[in-house]
Amino acid sequence: MMLKRLSLLVFLLAIGLNIFAQDAYMDAQAEDVEKTYVGGEKYEVKTYPHTFKTKKPKNIIFLIGDGMGVSQVFAGLTANHGRLFLDNFKHVGFSQTQSTSDFITDSAAGGTALSTGVRTYNGAIAVDTEKKPIKTILEKAEEKGLATGLVSTSTITHATPASFIAHQPNRNMYEEIAADFLKTDIDVFIGGGKAHFTQRKDGRNLVEEFKQKGYQFEEDIENIKKVKKGKLVGLIEEGDAGRLEHRKDMLPVSTETAINILSNNKKGFFLMVEGSQIDWGGHAGSTIYIVEDMLDFDKVVGKALDFASKNRETLVVVTADHETGGMAITGGDFETGMVKADYPLGGHTAVMVPVFAYGPGAEEFGGIMKNTDVNKKMEKLLLNK
Amino acid sequence: MMLKRLSLLVFLLAIGLNIFAQDAYMDAQAEDVEKTYVGGEKYEVKTYPHTFKTKKPKNIIFLIGDGMGVSQVFAGLTANHGRLFLDNFKHVGFSQTQSTSDFITDSAAGGTALSTGVRTYNGAIAVDTEKKPIKTILEKAEEKGLATGLVSTSTITHATPASFIAHQPNRNMYEEIAADFLKTDIDVFIGGGKAHFTQRKDGRNLVEEFKQKGYQFEEDIENIKKVKKGKLVGLIEEGDAGRLEHRKDMLPVSTETAINILSNNKKGFFLMVEGSQIDWGGHAGSTIYIVEDMLDFDKVVGKALDFASKNRETLVVVTADHETGGMAITGGDFETGMVKADYPLGGHTAVMVPVFAYGPGAEEFGGIMKNTDVNKKMEKLLLNK
Repeated sequence: MMLKRLSLLVFLLAIGLNIFAQDAYMDAQAEDVEKTYVGGEKYEVKTYPHTFKTKKPKNIIFLIGDGMGVSQVFAGLTANHGRLFLDNFKHVGFSQTQSTSDFITDSAAGGTALSTGVRTYNGAIAVDTEKKPIKTILEKAEEKGLATGLVSTSTITHATPASFIAHQPNRNMYEEIAADFLKTDIDVFIGGGKAHFTQRKDGRNLVEEFKQKGYQFEEDIENIKKVKKGKLVGLIEEGDAGRLEHRKDMLPVSTETAINILSNNKKGFFLMVEGSQIDWGGHAGSTIYIVEDMLDFDKVVGKALDFASKNRETLVVVTADHETGGMAITGGDFETGMVKADYPLGGHTAVMVPVFAYGPGAEEFGGIMKNTDVNKKMEKLLLNK
Repeated sequence: MMLKRLSLLVFLLAIGLNIFAQDAYMDAQAEDVEKTYVGGEKYEVKTYPHTFKTKKPKNIIFLIGDGMGVSQVFAGLTANHGRLFLDNFKHVGFSQTQSTSDFITDSAAGGTALSTGVRTYNGAIAVDTEKKPIKTILEKAEEKGLATGLVSTSTITHATPASFIAHQPNRNMYEEIAADFLKTDIDVFIGGGKAHFTQRKDGRNLVEEFKQKGYQFEEDIENIKKVKKGKLVGLIEEGDAGRLEHRKDMLPVSTETAINILSNNKKGFFLMVEGSQIDWGGHAGSTIYIVEDMLDFDKVVGKALDFASKNRETLVVVTADHETGGMAITGGDFETGMVKADYPLGGHTAVMVPVFAYGPGAEEFGGIMKNTDVNKKMEKLLLNK
């Protein structure tokens, strides 16, 4: 009797282990599929001249690839068969990203360092370690009469864009962050996050308030891209803008639209565009996700260079707030665009991230610097004239 | 009876599993110890002027950190409390390292690309895909009457230094590689690997042959550093130079010695120095090993800058052949110098590696380039005058 029970136990244990092993196997299979980008069509990359009108820029287009370390850039380079718009940059540096609270920054402290030149704690939106507001480059540009804009594929209230325009002690205070947008005279912002403007605990409808201030409001990318002047609120989703297959070319198109609108200002402009979801691909340990969003972001770089190379008074600076995933490139093929990678962790890493600069003043961005220096160099070039 | 046997089996299995688990636990502990560099003393880093006499360099000091990706540089930066000699470089780029045979290069194909400007297969020592010899920058410099030198902490016959002076179809042909040294007029080489010169299957004693050609021969670093002129063979070990605790400041001291000797040549010189063991730390998944060798290599950078900043006709180029380990920086502290990292694999990765340049012509090394371009730029600047 005892023996029978024991045999049954061993038998059931064996079945259990087998099911467990099959589950683990299927999980591993699914993970491996995500770790390989199988390749795709190549897009054409232009080569731009490096001759500029001035020593200091009239405009700055600041492009942040959230979570974009050197491996993410190289993954994109491989996936597009060896060429990126980022190839055009001759001035390269590294940005150290550490926050005051953590050796590994989050996007809030990282964004605040880039927007204000001040190091602060993880979670802070343009406030210092005492939680006092710090004026951002966007706000300072506005004070000088320059046009300003923000574009992202996240909610526009998310940490990175928020840190350029809002002042809150915690990145999760989305409704407070949305309300902060109304305290400024920003000319254009395009992204997700309509819910934080219209479905609010305080009952306010911020979109209506923006309209009363004379802003155009558009929810559809086809309408957004028709706007050529005036002021624009573009909120295409309640939440974030969705993955690439859903949002399509929303980010490069929105960037072009923002540049069109902002460049009407004779005094110049400051525009920040974030490729928000490179980071989310890193968190997911998905090479497919990273590559899709890296290439989408590189097309934004192309839009910036299209304008800057003709305008010749525009500085384009491209960097990241931090690296995500510890992405290690384990294989690839320039012919097919295939990329393989491994990820030792699902979070941010502490490594310094690349800085690329093109245009008047670009030579200031070479070598190893702190993330706060990226802001200080931009402010010096754009505002102290 | 059957039940007793089964009980015994389960009992023994339990003991076995317990022992196995303890072993695994201790292995994991040992691995975790290696993954954290606990910190150490800070060394002083000088700041150097950026004023040079000429547009093109008379001398090139080319420094290769084997396996030194951006994470390895940042690990060193953290370990030295936020400063490195590498901070002094204003011109930064990225080098793509792919070989003809593999998306992930080895040190032989990587070294050959840097020494000749030609992509070849993994394992090749300055031969092309047809196994035909390709003239290296060191050999071309020698033809122009410049002095030449090689220094490493590996055997001097190892892939990276070998690819600057030898021509062999396979990196493991150490004796043939050693014999190739004698076919040149190299002025100084210092490293490990004496066995390949003296304990040979062919019975030759290459050290004696070098002496007959008029070379000084030294085996002790104390004697090596006294040499100020003439030609020098410095072979300090039968095998590689050993870990830092054994070899101490052998690499920076040898670099200084080589510069002293080579700078006697009025026409100029080409010197390649390799920090060979950063790579070995990556293969071992050891943050301790990587940091020790990264900081040792940075002191070599300091020696190069000491000379170049006074000489003002010397270009210093620092790069890697590839990254090793997929090093992901997961923690650190600028105050204590502590660094933590994770390693998803024990091999090389495909990511582009940093390039740093200082001196006349340094501005050529900005942006994303191929490893072969690093060679072409150096050859153009040093040889086409």
